[in-house]
Amino acid sequence: MNYRMLARLNGEILIMEAIFMIPAMMISAWESNWNAAASFGYSILIILVVSGILLLLSKGARRRGFYAREGMVSVGLIWIVMSALGCLPFVISGEIPHYIDAFFETVSGFTTTGASIVPNVEALSKGILYWRSFTHWVGGMGVLVFLLAIVPTSGNDRGFTLHLLRAESPGPSVGKIVPRMKQTAMILYILYLVLTVLDIFFLVIGGMPLFDSVCHAFGTAGTGGFGVKADSIAGYSPYLQNVTTVFMILFGVNFSCYYLLIMKHFKEVLLDEELRLYLGVIFGSVILITLNLRGFYKTLEETVRHVFFQVASIITTTGYATTDFDLWPSFSKAILLGLMVIGACAGSTGGGLKCARFLLLVKGLRRNIRQVLHPQKVQVVRVNHRMVDEQILANTNAYLSAYVIIIILSTLVVSLDGFSFETNFSAVLCTFNNIGPGLAQVGPTCNFSAYGIVSKLVLSLGMLAGRLEIFPILAIFSRSTWKKL
Amino acid sequence: MNYRMLARLNGEILIMEAIFMIPAMMISAWESNWNAAASFGYSILIILVVSGILLLLSKGARRRGFYAREGMVSVGLIWIVMSALGCLPFVISGEIPHYIDAFFETVSGFTTTGASIVPNVEALSKGILYWRSFTHWVGGMGVLVFLLAIVPTSGNDRGFTLHLLRAESPGPSVGKIVPRMKQTAMILYILYLVLTVLDIFFLVIGGMPLFDSVCHAFGTAGTGGFGVKADSIAGYSPYLQNVTTVFMILFGVNFSCYYLLIMKHFKEVLLDEELRLYLGVIFGSVILITLNLRGFYKTLEETVRHVFFQVASIITTTGYATTDFDLWPSFSKAILLGLMVIGACAGSTGGGLKCARFLLLVKGLRRNIRQVLHPQKVQVVRVNHRMVDEQILANTNAYLSAYVIIIILSTLVVSLDGFSFETNFSAVLCTFNNIGPGLAQVGPTCNFSAYGIVSKLVLSLGMLAGRLEIFPILAIFSRSTWKKL
Repeated sequence: MNYRMLARLNGEILIMEAIFMIPAMMISAWESNWNAAASFGYSILIILVVSGILLLLSKGARRRGFYAREGMVSVGLIWIVMSALGCLPFVISGEIPHYIDAFFETVSGFTTTGASIVPNVEALSKGILYWRSFTHWVGGMGVLVFLLAIVPTSGNDRGFTLHLLRAESPGPSVGKIVPRMKQTAMILYILYLVLTVLDIFFLVIGGMPLFDSVCHAFGTAGTGGFGVKADSIAGYSPYLQNVTTVFMILFGVNFSCYYLLIMKHFKEVLLDEELRLYLGVIFGSVILITLNLRGFYKTLEETVRHVFFQVASIITTTGYATTDFDLWPSFSKAILLGLMVIGACAGSTGGGLKCARFLLLVKGLRRNIRQVLHPQKVQVVRVNHRMVDEQILANTNAYLSAYVIIIILSTLVVSLDGFSFETNFSAVLCTFNNIGPGLAQVGPTCNFSAYGIVSKLVLSLGMLAGRLEIFPILAIFSRSTWKKL
Repeated sequence: MNYRMLARLNGEILIMEAIFMIPAMMISAWESNWNAAASFGYSILIILVVSGILLLLSKGARRRGFYAREGMVSVGLIWIVMSALGCLPFVISGEIPHYIDAFFETVSGFTTTGASIVPNVEALSKGILYWRSFTHWVGGMGVLVFLLAIVPTSGNDRGFTLHLLRAESPGPSVGKIVPRMKQTAMILYILYLVLTVLDIFFLVIGGMPLFDSVCHAFGTAGTGGFGVKADSIAGYSPYLQNVTTVFMILFGVNFSCYYLLIMKHFKEVLLDEELRLYLGVIFGSVILITLNLRGFYKTLEETVRHVFFQVASIITTTGYATTDFDLWPSFSKAILLGLMVIGACAGSTGGGLKCARFLLLVKGLRRNIRQVLHPQKVQVVRVNHRMVDEQILANTNAYLSAYVIIIILSTLVVSLDGFSFETNFSAVLCTFNNIGPGLAQVGPTCNFSAYGIVSKLVLSLGMLAGRLEIFPILAIFSRSTWKKL
């Protein structure tokens, strides 16, 4: 294990985190909330001290000897450390007094889950609200991706960046837009920034205050779901709701599709099997739920608007709500639970199993049935007319096993707090798939504060495992990681 | 597709089914219930006519050209046809007036699920009750296994029997006890018969009436769960409950373990990883639930007895109950839901995912993590110190995909009837895993009669898919099956 490089990466990320806190501190100062501003100041100080110690320990770190396992473990640890320190402003300012609650909230932010333990979000100060939403934005595209995009690197480190990106990027295989990973990371963040600015623009011209617009755009871009109002998006105008619907869907698309569009490869985007599945599932679900909800809302316009919003919010794992979907009939709720599992596209900021993985599972299953029926024939799996590597299929299957096992075990532990099965199961699904609100007692009008400390830690770990796609977190707990080779 | 052989197998199985109905008819006659006796008589007649037509159509059928896909499809179709005709006595006698209800009940019988739509089981006549329980017994070990065990076969048909047994036997790989499949089938049925007789013996000496003992032993042996009393096993003495607990656990063990015991291979049985997992999960669950239930029952003896019974009943997918476990706290109920998924051992009469498959999934996942961490090393999966074939691992993974997809889709369809998520999800889990009672409105004190026709058919198909381990049922719907080669 390359411990020095591990310390160095953690140290570098923490400097970045300290810098990210400066705007939040300035907002607090601007609204003359000196308590909040000071809490950011102290937090920055603590983070820089920890970072300094780590960077001292990392002296002489080399990128050589940095392999797949180092990549996995770095990413897993960095996200845990970032959350453990990123929650300091909440605690120091006293706006979220308990450390475990603040940790839960911060993990929920970075992992773009949006599950909250805050009973009344409107009581939080502006600087704190900004920081809470900003964690969504930087967590959405990835903190290491950001680091790699901006930090100057030497030429011969392709293995290094690849191992890191592979561990942090969502989806069954890492999408290289251009041959060099550094450029890929830059292109991703530029696209991400442009889309976020567009979202803010459309919200502001719809009459949303600038501060609300920025926070909501962060939450939408990262497919997170933290808002600044107690009723999420329900209080805003239908226009603002529809803008959010469109941008949620856009942020759930694989970003390489946008790059292909800019490069004028229209046909490739149009025929992309994952994109077709993603849009197909969205429109199919909207039609089925709209039919199921006949008579539930006054007008068809209102029904379709709410259904589209909720479907987009759940499949992209954002978690905003314009209506209390916990009151919807069972069939509609079951569809939403199904969408939670499928999730957005690979290479997007959304969570869940990912459409690409779902596609691979279904195609792998069909291949397997054919193979059982005709054992003599060799069968391959193709996506977008290209043969899928058997190792990727094997990883996808292992992913499903881990997914099922983690959900069962987490539900077990969380059940110790005594809530109903619907509450516990949807709480686990919603945190692990990085969605946010679940059903029943963790539904869109409720929050996670009633759970005990153990449950909050388990759910936090679940959020991290979900965002980092399980392996980096499992790697931390695997004996094989820490063994000398 | 070898259509003639398909017709012939169906014809032969139906003759067997007609013969199986004779004891039930005699019991009805013996209690002078001429209506029930006549309903069996008419059913036998109809079944024989259908069988005759099939055998006529099958003239000139050859075992050559009978491959894996023929094996799969035969088994899938035979189970559907047997259920579609096996439910006739219920309908003709008027004791279950609606055909779909009777079909559901019969599928539930043959697949050893034990989910019932009968509101008051004590109102059924003895002959009908006997037939209902007998379907468990013959379904438990398999109807084709029975056919192969008793019908004389020529020498050169190893492929034929292998393809059939592989499709009907539970578990990731077909367990051959001895090199010849026919002998294996015979040994299995002899062991099965002996254990069943022992169970009847212990029940009778405990004071249970002979008729009840036979029916309960059928339900226990097949890990089915149909009883003859409205309160399942709750009304019987603690001794009878404990006998049932022990036999449920025994019938959930891989039958090849018993053969190895008779052959005095004690060490092999003791070290069998699946058996250890199975017993470990049982004892672990009993301890956890007992701790969780402190103060729920009056004495520790009563607690442990109920917990052991319920744990054994759920993990072996039997579905008998001595207490309304729907009233247990969330944590205990969550453990039971977990046990539903894991299920009994491969090569037993129990359902579920099977311990062997669970073991393969966990080991496959661990292998995969190691492979992600150290991509250069080749890693193999071992069970009982033997290397597992990669094709079996691939099949196991495909099985899990199919499992998850079927559960999601079934829950969706069943939700249309408007019950709670807990009801629907546990109904799907309980039928698909061949357990029987679920939670909430399909809990141990309730039944499935409230569901609509579509839901009953979907749940029936789920029971068949669960018992036959998905592939034979999927094969029927796969284009690749019916394609000319």
